Amino acid sequence: MTSVEHSPLTRKLSAFVALSQVELAVLERLHQRRRTFVARREMVHQGQSAQAAYILSGGWVCSYKRQTDGTRQIVDFQVPGDFLGLRSVLLRTSDHSFEPIVDIEAAEVMTRDLLEAFALTPRLATAILWAASRDEAMVVEHLVGIGRRDADARMAHFLLELGSRLALVGMGGKDGFDCPLTQYHLADTLGLSAVHVNRVLRQLRENGLVTFRDGHVTFDDYGGLVKLAEFDPAYLDQTGPLLK
Amino acid sequence: MTSVEHSPLTRKLSAFVALSQVELAVLERLHQRRRTFVARREMVHQGQSAQAAYILSGGWVCSYKRQTDGTRQIVDFQVPGDFLGLRSVLLRTSDHSFEPIVDIEAAEVMTRDLLEAFALTPRLATAILWAASRDEAMVVEHLVGIGRRDADARMAHFLLELGSRLALVGMGGKDGFDCPLTQYHLADTLGLSAVHVNRVLRQLRENGLVTFRDGHVTFDDYGGLVKLAEFDPAYLDQTGPLLK
Repeated sequence: MTSVEHSPLTRKLSAFVALSQVELAVLERLHQRRRTFVARREMVHQGQSAQAAYILSGGWVCSYKRQTDGTRQIVDFQVPGDFLGLRSVLLRTSDHSFEPIVDIEAAEVMTRDLLEAFALTPRLATAILWAASRDEAMVVEHLVGIGRRDADARMAHFLLELGSRLALVGMGGKDGFDCPLTQYHLADTLGLSAVHVNRVLRQLRENGLVTFRDGHVTFDDYGGLVKLAEFDPAYLDQTGPLLK
Repeated sequence: MTSVEHSPLTRKLSAFVALSQVELAVLERLHQRRRTFVARREMVHQGQSAQAAYILSGGWVCSYKRQTDGTRQIVDFQVPGDFLGLRSVLLRTSDHSFEPIVDIEAAEVMTRDLLEAFALTPRLATAILWAASRDEAMVVEHLVGIGRRDADARMAHFLLELGSRLALVGMGGKDGFDCPLTQYHLADTLGLSAVHVNRVLRQLRENGLVTFRDGHVTFDDYGGLVKLAEFDPAYLDQTGPLLK
């Protein structure tokens, strides 16, 4: 059981619920079918049904919806500890596509295994509902970002959110984090052109707030960036377990 | 138990799971604290903590995030059968505000009652995770709408989604539905000005697709509207129970 006790998903869920040995064992069983997927090859296409879900343990994934005009809206990124396609399993048809940004490691979870795990350990089911609520809260923030925030605040909010999420699984902090995203990912996420993304990043750097360079985001002035973005991390609920 | 067997939430969850007598009884207990709330008075303000959740049984509610500049982004509307603030209970702090659009009836659900219900009936917990996944899929559609759809398609998609949701709880169909929303609600949802909303609605009406007048939406050409919006209702997963 030692491996899963330190899995990113376990770390993440532990922010909500103090997991018992039984719950850890059930969580371990969900990690049995370990697989690897290569970068930039779509894993699931929107409209597909009867898919498995995945628990991401290493690497980054991008979830998006493609429009018939060929453009895409990136809905969110998944980092270690996140589910891929959990929503799609329950809704039977995938409402989005996802593809690895780098080579990834993930455990495949069949619908029946997931439902069986819920039946065995309701606290685990509640913890996964918590994780789903948190994912929804992030999509809400992205909606508000595109709908109401100007480009600088939108970018700042997005980078701060990523930093907080990664900190929860031990992959970042208030100094910064490694980040494999390109300007095109940022553009399709924030509803900006790639040129506009570059301009915004340059301005944030020249204002001494954040530097995104060579695959690393450095928070040069974390407090200043929080202020610009009006970033309140309460929606990420990372302050310690509600369920003891 | 007869009353709750016909509650909108029961109708909705039955699209996902065939509920047993025990599960119906647990669902009934969640409906015990029945309350009414008057129109246009905020029930929960973003940033509040230690809130209850609610199960909406009659009327419409609006969920939104207010920005410091005074503008608001409406995230979604709740109709009978929907939870209010479910996400906020699990995340401890409400990430959004909500207020009734008309006078409403709702059952107040304490966090401990909800967690107890999950422990008693894991299938009910799974059904509520399904409902939460569906809510998230709707927010994703709203994000794609604001990010990628032109104003006509955005409006058409939104009205079709509402129609499908209401049909699930017996309050509408492919003919149309009663709708208490104003042009200001539509504007704050779709990221348009009220003037632009009026122009879009007039154009959709003149094209013989949909008429929104005197508190009623009439689908004049349902198929044509679906085509314009590229509306695929799979993300609402209303085709019959996955869990027998």
